[in-house]
Amino acid sequence: MMPMDTLTIYLAGEIHSDWRDQLRRHLEDRKIPADIDYVGPQEVHDRSDDIGEAILGEQPGQRYRDLMGARVNTLRTRVVMQRADLAVAYFGDKYKQWNTATDAGAAIALGIPLILVRDPDHTHALKELDALAALTVETLEQAAEAIGYVFE
Amino acid sequence: MMPMDTLTIYLAGEIHSDWRDQLRRHLEDRKIPADIDYVGPQEVHDRSDDIGEAILGEQPGQRYRDLMGARVNTLRTRVVMQRADLAVAYFGDKYKQWNTATDAGAAIALGIPLILVRDPDHTHALKELDALAALTVETLEQAAEAIGYVFE
Amino acid sequence: MMPMDTLTIYLAGEIHSDWRDQLRRHLEDRKIPADIDYVGPQEVHDRSDDIGEAILGEQPGQRYRDLMGARVNTLRTRVVMQRADLAVAYFGDKYKQWNTATDAGAAIALGIPLILVRDPDHTHALKELDALAALTVETLEQAAEAIGYVFE
Amino acid sequence: MMPMDTLTIYLAGEIHSDWRDQLRRHLEDRKIPADIDYVGPQEVHDRSDDIGEAILGEQPGQRYRDLMGARVNTLRTRVVMQRADLAVAYFGDKYKQWNTATDAGAAIALGIPLILVRDPDHTHALKELDALAALTVETLEQAAEAIGYVFE
Amino acid sequence: MMPMDTLTIYLAGEIHSDWRDQLRRHLEDRKIPADIDYVGPQEVHDRSDDIGEAILGEQPGQRYRDLMGARVNTLRTRVVMQRADLAVAYFGDKYKQWNTATDAGAAIALGIPLILVRDPDHTHALKELDALAALTVETLEQAAEAIGYVFE
Amino acid sequence: MMPMDTLTIYLAGEIHSDWRDQLRRHLEDRKIPADIDYVGPQEVHDRSDDIGEAILGEQPGQRYRDLMGARVNTLRTRVVMQRADLAVAYFGDKYKQWNTATDAGAAIALGIPLILVRDPDHTHALKELDALAALTVETLEQAAEAIGYVFE
Amino acid sequence: MMPMDTLTIYLAGEIHSDWRDQLRRHLEDRKIPADIDYVGPQEVHDRSDDIGEAILGEQPGQRYRDLMGARVNTLRTRVVMQRADLAVAYFGDKYKQWNTATDAGAAIALGIPLILVRDPDHTHALKELDALAALTVETLEQAAEAIGYVFE
Amino acid sequence: MMPMDTLTIYLAGEIHSDWRDQLRRHLEDRKIPADIDYVGPQEVHDRSDDIGEAILGEQPGQRYRDLMGARVNTLRTRVVMQRADLAVAYFGDKYKQWNTATDAGAAIALGIPLILVRDPDHTHALKELDALAALTVETLEQAAEAIGYVFE
Repeated sequence: MMPMDTLTIYLAGEIHSDWRDQLRRHLEDRKIPADIDYVGPQEVHDRSDDIGEAILGEQPGQRYRDLMGARVNTLRTRVVMQRADLAVAYFGDKYKQWNTATDAGAAIALGIPLILVRDPDHTHALKELDALAALTVETLEQAAEAIGYVFE
Repeated sequence: MMPMDTLTIYLAGEIHSDWRDQLRRHLEDRKIPADIDYVGPQEVHDRSDDIGEAILGEQPGQRYRDLMGARVNTLRTRVVMQRADLAVAYFGDKYKQWNTATDAGAAIALGIPLILVRDPDHTHALKELDALAALTVETLEQAAEAIGYVFE
Repeated sequence: MMPMDTLTIYLAGEIHSDWRDQLRRHLEDRKIPADIDYVGPQEVHDRSDDIGEAILGEQPGQRYRDLMGARVNTLRTRVVMQRADLAVAYFGDKYKQWNTATDAGAAIALGIPLILVRDPDHTHALKELDALAALTVETLEQAAEAIGYVFE
Repeated sequence: MMPMDTLTIYLAGEIHSDWRDQLRRHLEDRKIPADIDYVGPQEVHDRSDDIGEAILGEQPGQRYRDLMGARVNTLRTRVVMQRADLAVAYFGDKYKQWNTATDAGAAIALGIPLILVRDPDHTHALKELDALAALTVETLEQAAEAIGYVFE
Repeated sequence: MMPMDTLTIYLAGEIHSDWRDQLRRHLEDRKIPADIDYVGPQEVHDRSDDIGEAILGEQPGQRYRDLMGARVNTLRTRVVMQRADLAVAYFGDKYKQWNTATDAGAAIALGIPLILVRDPDHTHALKELDALAALTVETLEQAAEAIGYVFE
Repeated sequence: MMPMDTLTIYLAGEIHSDWRDQLRRHLEDRKIPADIDYVGPQEVHDRSDDIGEAILGEQPGQRYRDLMGARVNTLRTRVVMQRADLAVAYFGDKYKQWNTATDAGAAIALGIPLILVRDPDHTHALKELDALAALTVETLEQAAEAIGYVFE
Repeated sequence: MMPMDTLTIYLAGEIHSDWRDQLRRHLEDRKIPADIDYVGPQEVHDRSDDIGEAILGEQPGQRYRDLMGARVNTLRTRVVMQRADLAVAYFGDKYKQWNTATDAGAAIALGIPLILVRDPDHTHALKELDALAALTVETLEQAAEAIGYVFE
Repeated sequence: MMPMDTLTIYLAGEIHSDWRDQLRRHLEDRKIPADIDYVGPQEVHDRSDDIGEAILGEQPGQRYRDLMGARVNTLRTRVVMQRADLAVAYFGDKYKQWNTATDAGAAIALGIPLILVRDPDHTHALKELDALAALTVETLEQAAEAIGYVFE
């Protein structure tokens, strides 16, 4: 096992906003005495949507374009989630975010402790994930505090 | 192992509509030569929302009411999901359905084959789950056909 | 997998009081539509303490009497815990109950959902187990309600 | 796998006394030819008790203060216990130490070999944990000897 | 666990010949004192090839017709392979039989003991599977003898 | 999971004496309220030695005769050990009994609780297995007592 | 867990052509910001065929020569496959390639994401592996693109 | 996962002769391009026998002296076996070597590939272990060749 001065965090969430950058900044500001490695889906939205056809060529319609692109994307997320010690699932106000919830459920089932980040407005809709998560917070800054606490 | 004339199916999805009854009817209509057992969350919506306070007493606010109720509900779903040979995740037009996606991700991570049922309108939003699922169909009737095929 | 009309519950707790009988009665009163099977340690206290020497013969001192008896008792609990779908850990006012907590931790690590039953006086001392348990209740009657809910 | 010149030890026990410092000193005195990394719960007692409200804000009462704090603490212990090659569970004369026994049971169920450290006065109360542990000793110095033996 | 008078066997192999019927007959002839349950892929070849479009509707080309049909077929085989205590992989003279080898490798990795049935002409091409299999025989009759031996 | 009125026991040991019959008699004498199923290697010694050539035909020498026979025999023991809730490893005065020790080590590693039965003369040679076993006894009658205790 | 700047890839496929060299070149050309380690079977064909007799001495016939050589070869592949984060299975026009499919099935069952590389001519014969693989591509260059995408 | 230029080998066997030194020398002579780490039981026989009383103090008789010493020794072997990629089990002409066979069975059950080293005189007594092992050789030099082959 790696000594406890490294940590790999899987960041599950939409790829439209810069929430991952925010979390990374909060963690850097805390000067945690550990090497933190971040893994997760492709963060550039168009690249993520186009990767199927970029690699495999044109597909006969949106359904296959989406499926083939998703095959490439889930190849990536499956490989990197194997490395995670901890996962953060971020739910914002926009987008269906079903992929986020899927990743969260997978992380939990794999025994990876999960921090759920969600606005109080989503309390009811995310109550089950709250019960399954190791911890539920409301802001990315709180998530960073909890992660830093692992190394105190 | 149980002989292959029994099957337990975990039904993941919202608890507002009668989609589970529809699926059960389609399966009965097919006269599949097997005992099919259905498990899943509590289907009576108010009972599901109230169960926390019903058992534990009044809670100091919505956040705790939701959390405690969800603890009881996820106790149930964790116990029954252990029994599932197969899971069906149903996505309709309404509700956030984050719980559905969480259950779907958990089932997949636990090695339980998943049938994803979703309208073509959700193709893009559910592309990752499509790539992870064993099979994606558009209607509950198609899901029933695929399940019946296991016993042909 | 067994159909969802059976359930095996591991009852972790001290073997001095009749708390298991109380829980069994609460469950019978609820007329749950399932066969519930109870497993756990030997409930007759003297038999539990004496079983080592009863089988293996006199031991050279209390330390070895305890160890050999415990080997027989943990043979039993390990075999039966393998059968459990769910565990209940009961903490009363007396006794160190370290064995109860050990069993609870083991159940959780094995993925067996746990219901923690404890008086509010023990809230602080059992806070970590509360966070790890699927559900925490204060009375055996509440535990029975939650178990019955699995079958609603 | 890491070469056998590193070892991560999970230290389960109360966070009131300096027993962990004592064990660490005994191990350093033995000049074991390995990098030993220690993981475990937060050792500063007040920080451990307060961390829930420190991150999440004021909670409506002791029960929720304890639960939320414990969620943060168990996030930490779950992450770090994943790294452990070996666990030490220390039982002293004071405190209920149910958290210690819970961690011990979890470690054993996860296949992490456990060294139980306990005064002879606790022989009877810890007999089951004695039977499940890889080794039972009476002092921290003996625990350090056994750990050093792994590298001889 | 089921008592040792039942056995579920996964039959991996091409679906063109009647080799499964032959094996079943050999086993029935041996009057083995056990209920033997057989699982495996759909044995009616056209049904297997058409099932994708039968359920999902017309697909835009052979590649998608094959993929969607295979998704339905592998849903079936994944569900039933979970039930297997033992697997038989049969290699005949015709067909690529890559699906057979894939199933064989999966069974072995899942810890399901495998009996490899192959003509001596395939000794060299199947040498690795021979080394990984529990047993290699040349005829279905020998496979039946070995299976019957489990119950002697 | 099966209700706790059934038990499958894997009997590991030499196949020359009738020790298995002795253990079965002791267990029947105790009138244990459970269906006990016994699994293990082929008990008829010549059949066990000959089975390789009986199925596969003559082999070019003792080394291959032994290997092929052992492949058939370990196919059997692997299939049946999957069913065991508990294992008994019996060491007598004669024979190398390396197969017994191999089975014992496998059972332990698979999490199957083991009862070691050995004469005090073998205390030193079996000390490690003693430390790994759930329980060590000296006679088959003591083993039967311990097994009966599981059902008290 | 290793930080996400390393990756070990298991290369499953025939050992007659230089396809592995081609894939390695495509990956080097992409200048992926990671240390990529390649594992797989022995690539020198004669060495692979002869290794059994090279180590163990002459065997009595082709069947045993193949089996003993395969035992050495599968010792190697089993050890190295344990290290893989990802697998690539390559199917060309020649050779039975049953070993390739066996390795592919094993990788999938072990939870190692698989990229299937196959010419469109094999679409039908490899449809099941296509459904089980994380991604199916037609050329080694596309496989390299997908692997590089993991690190974008 | 560690890159494939390291290997940890568990050496199971008696601790009377210098067979481990011989194997290590053979491996060094092969100049394998990898860091090979060796783990196993304590090789100094008296230290191994005495370690129980050395740490825990005098025990009331040989049976307890052996058991307590074995607890310390199996703590060591359990911790280090977790690190092994591969195991070698050596059987010589003397000693019961039940501990060797136990370790071998455990390694196999844990999925660690095993090389069995045994003189042809033990062919019959070790036939089952031969069938379960990845490879069986007659000399330590052959074992070293097979290990070196992993890195070719």
